[in-house]
Amino acid sequence: MKAAYITQPGPASSICFGEQPEPEIGEGDVLIRMEAAAVNHIDTYIRSGAYALPLPRPFIVGRDLVGVVERAGGSVTNFQPGDRVWSNCLGIDGLQGTFSEYVAAPAERLYHLPAGVGPEQAVAVLHSALTAAIGLFERAHLQPNETLFINGGSGSVGLAVLQAAKGQGARVAVTAGSPAKADRCRQAGADCVIDYHNEDLAAAVRAFAPEGVTLYWDATRLFDMELALQVLAPRGRMVVMAGLDRHCDLPLGKFYTRNACLIGFTVTGTTVDEYARISKRINGWLQNQTLSAFIEQVLPLSQTAKAHALQESGQLSGKLVVVPD
Amino acid sequence: MKAAYITQPGPASSICFGEQPEPEIGEGDVLIRMEAAAVNHIDTYIRSGAYALPLPRPFIVGRDLVGVVERAGGSVTNFQPGDRVWSNCLGIDGLQGTFSEYVAAPAERLYHLPAGVGPEQAVAVLHSALTAAIGLFERAHLQPNETLFINGGSGSVGLAVLQAAKGQGARVAVTAGSPAKADRCRQAGADCVIDYHNEDLAAAVRAFAPEGVTLYWDATRLFDMELALQVLAPRGRMVVMAGLDRHCDLPLGKFYTRNACLIGFTVTGTTVDEYARISKRINGWLQNQTLSAFIEQVLPLSQTAKAHALQESGQLSGKLVVVPD
Repeated sequence: MKAAYITQPGPASSICFGEQPEPEIGEGDVLIRMEAAAVNHIDTYIRSGAYALPLPRPFIVGRDLVGVVERAGGSVTNFQPGDRVWSNCLGIDGLQGTFSEYVAAPAERLYHLPAGVGPEQAVAVLHSALTAAIGLFERAHLQPNETLFINGGSGSVGLAVLQAAKGQGARVAVTAGSPAKADRCRQAGADCVIDYHNEDLAAAVRAFAPEGVTLYWDATRLFDMELALQVLAPRGRMVVMAGLDRHCDLPLGKFYTRNACLIGFTVTGTTVDEYARISKRINGWLQNQTLSAFIEQVLPLSQTAKAHALQESGQLSGKLVVVPD
Repeated sequence: MKAAYITQPGPASSICFGEQPEPEIGEGDVLIRMEAAAVNHIDTYIRSGAYALPLPRPFIVGRDLVGVVERAGGSVTNFQPGDRVWSNCLGIDGLQGTFSEYVAAPAERLYHLPAGVGPEQAVAVLHSALTAAIGLFERAHLQPNETLFINGGSGSVGLAVLQAAKGQGARVAVTAGSPAKADRCRQAGADCVIDYHNEDLAAAVRAFAPEGVTLYWDATRLFDMELALQVLAPRGRMVVMAGLDRHCDLPLGKFYTRNACLIGFTVTGTTVDEYARISKRINGWLQNQTLSAFIEQVLPLSQTAKAHALQESGQLSGKLVVVPD
């Protein structure tokens, strides 16, 4: 079968495309014919070695997929050949990734895709949806009457957080850097879209939420603690989930006298049991079209190295989806 | 009546001691004859203006007291003359403080002191007990199977957090800077006492908790983020509640990939309703002697200016208690 893989961590150009043996499946595994996979930042961190995980060699890249069950191991009861499934937790914990024509995965890491949901649309929102679900609900315990500010609202994660929070009944302000991105945020339900090129951000957020926002989500790689402390309501929470190499200054007095809370998280830190619970929320969102992804480009599997390079360029405003050649 | 008061924010020496009119009480108020009050850091911040609160002028300093009910307003049903009561939320919200022979307080800010608890011992632990109760239980939701590290374990707050966490069944390591302070921590139940002058702190905490501590509480004014990130378990929480003018460097990647959470809080941010709930826990601790304060010195009310100067010297290792002359 064809696969995109590395023999050791390195730059995007170190991704090979070629023949790899079709994977064997164990008793509790499922063999899936991949229909669509998406490129995530974390894929590039694992590929480059920035996240120093123990990897099989060669290592097939990628974390998530949508595909169709080809066959299932003897102890698997909940998946049948022909079922359409998704996963967002492969390519970690010593498992091979998803960028290959066939993928072997433990059944406990697979979830049924609701009927009527397209593979490319689904795979494009999976990682952002998980990020929003874990951050908003598992960690920050979002309530319906809250007021949010999302710094970086038009990226994949920002849009997912925006749509998930609106689905919960919250009021949401976001930033967007162009008229097209601002439109995308408005269509996704934003109550207030701030152009960060032209407006005093703190003043604009304060105008939207005079008593402060109860949740500040920074979806940029440039977490802005100063802004967060200017706009956060007493007892507000801040969420940080990006900016691997960044540092910021933390003024302790301003932070603790605001009774603030800073929540850091990674989707990778999620356990299989938690995934099982969260997958129900994700499937509800997929079914109700709560979340809509903006797909920047669909590429063939053979162009995975190019896809990683594009992801690392910082120039994308939507998701890259990969399909078999 | 005699009182310790300021006419405007300023240094410790601006505290006057002299005659002030005995306070009037309203329908919902209680007049208390003060038996003991304690000096807290926050008293010095309010007196100096570092916490810029609106204050009555002149302003009687102090936040907490133990005393005896002298008389109660017409609508007060739960307090009788002769009842011994405590409070930790006076001297804020426009109310006069507690450093006077008589204190008028809204009944909703008063709690009965359990029988058999001495006024000086009780008042000496009140603020630290509230700090521990709010931080450990209201904000960090401490569970019995947790492993804590308290940086600065022998101060008033550190000891209270240590004793409260031990009372909940947690394992606790602390730092102490002298043999006498180390003994105090061991008597208070510490499972591990680390001499921060002579040991590699991170290595010592790692030896105590090889998988990391689930809760890092910094009771010093020098919150050590670097140490916290070295010793914290995945998904661990850090608590910051001191260091008004301090800044620290926050390495975002290390923080969020640890799935860490930083919780800041002040006792002052507590609502009257929350106080009512938390006071039950405090009274349980007082009754069961879960907490024991180390009283450094008992001073007469007339020496309040000296007491504030001592508090600000940074040289105290226990509480200052003030009693009427």
